[in-house]
Amino acid sequence: MKCTRCGAAAVIEVRRHNAAFCGACFRVVFGNQVARAIDEYDMFAPGDRILVAVSGGKDSLALWDVLLDAGYRVDGLYLGLGIGDYSDRSHVLTQAFADARGATLVTVDLADDFGYDIPTAARKGSRSTCAVCGLSKRYVFNKAALDGGYDVIATGHNLDDEAATLLGNTLRWNIGYIARQSPVLAAEPGLVRKVKPLYRLSELETAAYAFLRGIDYVVEECPLVAGNTQLRYKKAMNAIESRSPGTKAQFFLGYLDRGAPIFRTADEQVDLASCANCGQATTGTYCAFCRSRAQILGERLPEVAEAR
Amino acid sequence: MKCTRCGAAAVIEVRRHNAAFCGACFRVVFGNQVARAIDEYDMFAPGDRILVAVSGGKDSLALWDVLLDAGYRVDGLYLGLGIGDYSDRSHVLTQAFADARGATLVTVDLADDFGYDIPTAARKGSRSTCAVCGLSKRYVFNKAALDGGYDVIATGHNLDDEAATLLGNTLRWNIGYIARQSPVLAAEPGLVRKVKPLYRLSELETAAYAFLRGIDYVVEECPLVAGNTQLRYKKAMNAIESRSPGTKAQFFLGYLDRGAPIFRTADEQVDLASCANCGQATTGTYCAFCRSRAQILGERLPEVAEAR
Repeated sequence: MKCTRCGAAAVIEVRRHNAAFCGACFRVVFGNQVARAIDEYDMFAPGDRILVAVSGGKDSLALWDVLLDAGYRVDGLYLGLGIGDYSDRSHVLTQAFADARGATLVTVDLADDFGYDIPTAARKGSRSTCAVCGLSKRYVFNKAALDGGYDVIATGHNLDDEAATLLGNTLRWNIGYIARQSPVLAAEPGLVRKVKPLYRLSELETAAYAFLRGIDYVVEECPLVAGNTQLRYKKAMNAIESRSPGTKAQFFLGYLDRGAPIFRTADEQVDLASCANCGQATTGTYCAFCRSRAQILGERLPEVAEAR
Repeated sequence: MKCTRCGAAAVIEVRRHNAAFCGACFRVVFGNQVARAIDEYDMFAPGDRILVAVSGGKDSLALWDVLLDAGYRVDGLYLGLGIGDYSDRSHVLTQAFADARGATLVTVDLADDFGYDIPTAARKGSRSTCAVCGLSKRYVFNKAALDGGYDVIATGHNLDDEAATLLGNTLRWNIGYIARQSPVLAAEPGLVRKVKPLYRLSELETAAYAFLRGIDYVVEECPLVAGNTQLRYKKAMNAIESRSPGTKAQFFLGYLDRGAPIFRTADEQVDLASCANCGQATTGTYCAFCRSRAQILGERLPEVAEAR
């Protein structure tokens, strides 16, 4: 198998593009796909301050790496979730990456800063583990970006993640969620702009990139993720993909191209207010994070004297 | 396990409804689901002449059975596809069913009446086996219904069929196909109304119904179907369904409820004309069936003197 670009021995095959690449060319191709994503959705400009949410996994570290490489002003944000060895190891690898690249890592710890960790939240809250973890991440990422004065939050969601999410929402015809799934979520009052520069790249490709770049990342899945429906959707997509390479990309990129415009016209606009407890954006009186946190900690949210 | 309706010993469990039924009650429940489908989409009225397309498989024979049972004026239509023993056996079982019920079976043979069988079409035509078979069926069903003066054509498509078709079209965001997928296709000039009264019932349920009613049907898959993408979509749906019972129904029925209205507004209307060769409805000069048949038989379609 020879590199489609330079003819040298190839190290990775990208079946859906019917192509293969050597390590050096794959790095270029990978960077080009990220650049194309940034450009297509006007994700950020060279001067912008970017905060990339890094978990210690292949996707987010690959993203940080490629953005640093491209010369962007990009810091990392590590959120300690308190999931035992898994979290400890994730933190160590993330810090090691930052140190090796001379990059800045902002660290927030859920237990220290908000009074609970994910195992506790899963036990005491009413949400599933993955739901409360997702809620906590979205909240903390946004707060950290606001506090640090960043222009944009970048996450490592790849093509497989996006296709699985879209499949799950489509199987339920959850019109609002489908309409709002996008590689970029515009800033709103109290909400920092969010972007997913890896949406054109598959999980296999981000893993290959991280491997070829010598990035030491946490290989194991989160130990709390067993039975996660997202993983089931990924498996279903992979089963189809293995027989029809390109299905995943066709599904998600085709959605962006042909599906999204249809759903967007059907979606309802929501008005945002400020959470009466923390001030972050919400559609209700209190934001979902504050309500969830109060429930986990067994605390009561302050009474709201006047109706909004 | 006890029957949810009468408390007797159950013979079938319907996990997505969290219910189980004895044979007698399942027959009632099955009939009720068909009645609900007919009612919800105004599929046909008691006096209408119905032509049910019967392949010899469980779905179409179950449909014929339940419609006869409900007192409808319903004849069967068997189309001989010339797929060796598989077709011979299908014809024998279909005729035996008709004889046992004292029902009328109309038989059309693709080779006798149109000059080719499916194995020949697959070899000589440019379409895949399943594509040319589907095209031939749609054409012959419509022609037989027109010729026989029937009001409506009913096919045995079940929930699994519809969910798999919807998944395939959604993975490609084929907006027009998604928009037009419906349990009922209204009559148009030259096109007889088409309905799918089993769309609320799963493959497992139609199989159970056929078994409990003692219907002798062709169990084996069509021998030409290997590698069919529809089967892959069914497998993917079943993998998700086994862990989350109800996903399939939620996907297809949810589409009808919430997705279809959105897609319908996005779909383009097409104008139908008459095929210059056979007179059936088409969007072009010649219908797809006539073009396909001419290619298979190595014939030329007559020149069209004047532009339409």
